[in-house]
Amino acid sequence: MKEYTKSKLNRVKRGQNRAVYDIEKINEILDAGFLCYVGYIYEGNPISIPMAYARKDDKIYLHGSTANRMLLAILQSKKTSITVMHLDGLVIARSGLHHSVNYRSATLFGSLQKIDDDNEKSDILELIVNQMIPNHWDSLRPMHQKELDRTLVVEFTIETASAKVRAEGVNDEPEDYELPIWAGVIPVKQIAEYPIADKGKPEKMNIPNHILEYYHQNKS
Amino acid sequence: MKEYTKSKLNRVKRGQNRAVYDIEKINEILDAGFLCYVGYIYEGNPISIPMAYARKDDKIYLHGSTANRMLLAILQSKKTSITVMHLDGLVIARSGLHHSVNYRSATLFGSLQKIDDDNEKSDILELIVNQMIPNHWDSLRPMHQKELDRTLVVEFTIETASAKVRAEGVNDEPEDYELPIWAGVIPVKQIAEYPIADKGKPEKMNIPNHILEYYHQNKS
Repeated sequence: MKEYTKSKLNRVKRGQNRAVYDIEKINEILDAGFLCYVGYIYEGNPISIPMAYARKDDKIYLHGSTANRMLLAILQSKKTSITVMHLDGLVIARSGLHHSVNYRSATLFGSLQKIDDDNEKSDILELIVNQMIPNHWDSLRPMHQKELDRTLVVEFTIETASAKVRAEGVNDEPEDYELPIWAGVIPVKQIAEYPIADKGKPEKMNIPNHILEYYHQNKS
Repeated sequence: MKEYTKSKLNRVKRGQNRAVYDIEKINEILDAGFLCYVGYIYEGNPISIPMAYARKDDKIYLHGSTANRMLLAILQSKKTSITVMHLDGLVIARSGLHHSVNYRSATLFGSLQKIDDDNEKSDILELIVNQMIPNHWDSLRPMHQKELDRTLVVEFTIETASAKVRAEGVNDEPEDYELPIWAGVIPVKQIAEYPIADKGKPEKMNIPNHILEYYHQNKS
């Protein structure tokens, strides 16, 4: 399967020219970030909760405290979705209506299960740490059993998904191009600033290469 | 009222030391961005939809096409919430468990109404454009009536809210501070790159001051 099948749930209704169902392209959007918005229903209200995640194959992994209200609720209700969005630019048009943003967003629907096996939990936490900062896990001390015990790990299997991507310039009304109004795109991106060492030993240590690489790849 | 009253809906359950109910502090979080995640329920599933917004007093304004499925659904169901989050840094601990992020997030609950008056709609669209780029609206051509007619404007009145803020260094286990593991914070932020003029007249125009100011305030 190279594309998610379009269904009532995942079909993009507005701006279908921007719709993406291609699995590899959606995975690229997921792999470009580590923060998602998890939807859950609390007392009848839909709430979006920002959370760290990792992707591997068709799985998205989430974690939290074993008392995490949201994770426990979605495990029970099976009702959730996951949204990831990257903002790439502000689109400045000649008219208010055609103002827009350049972005890549993906919305995922799927099934959930709790992971109980300690080795599997540890492997997943490694994925989550390394999705935030590549190659980072191996520099940490091993997890204590009591830490694993108090961590809830949830596996979300992507069953269907869609993405929307806008990556272009201004689309104004034809008659507006003659107006003496500036229009264009302001690219925006997230950058990392220089790492700040914690008090104590890290102040006297070299910053590890993988941390410096993260900084260099994300700075402007 | 200086604080939102804590209720079952808005009370922060995990990390109560990071909870913020102060209205001015929550407004600061809202005013620092222009993209929110609107929760809505579609076919029983909670979905988080990224949208532009503006805040004025206790109102959040959203807009979209008059055929926008999500806005129409939340106007009818009255079930929604709005989440805004700013990522400020990666917190690199000595142990996996204490990895975290610095952030400011706010979740809002309230009531919704559609705005029908054209003058009011136009004033709100001005707020939304200016929340994205300050002082921008006055440089655009006025909206056409047919554009107003096809734009749905929704007013969300904040009835209760809470925020969570983490703005500090690493919190490791006491015994871990002696480990020879680097720890610290990598600050992250969103920046603007130099504006790219649209083809035609803008290529020969000076970039307006308010656009250059936006760039200068958001670059690194």
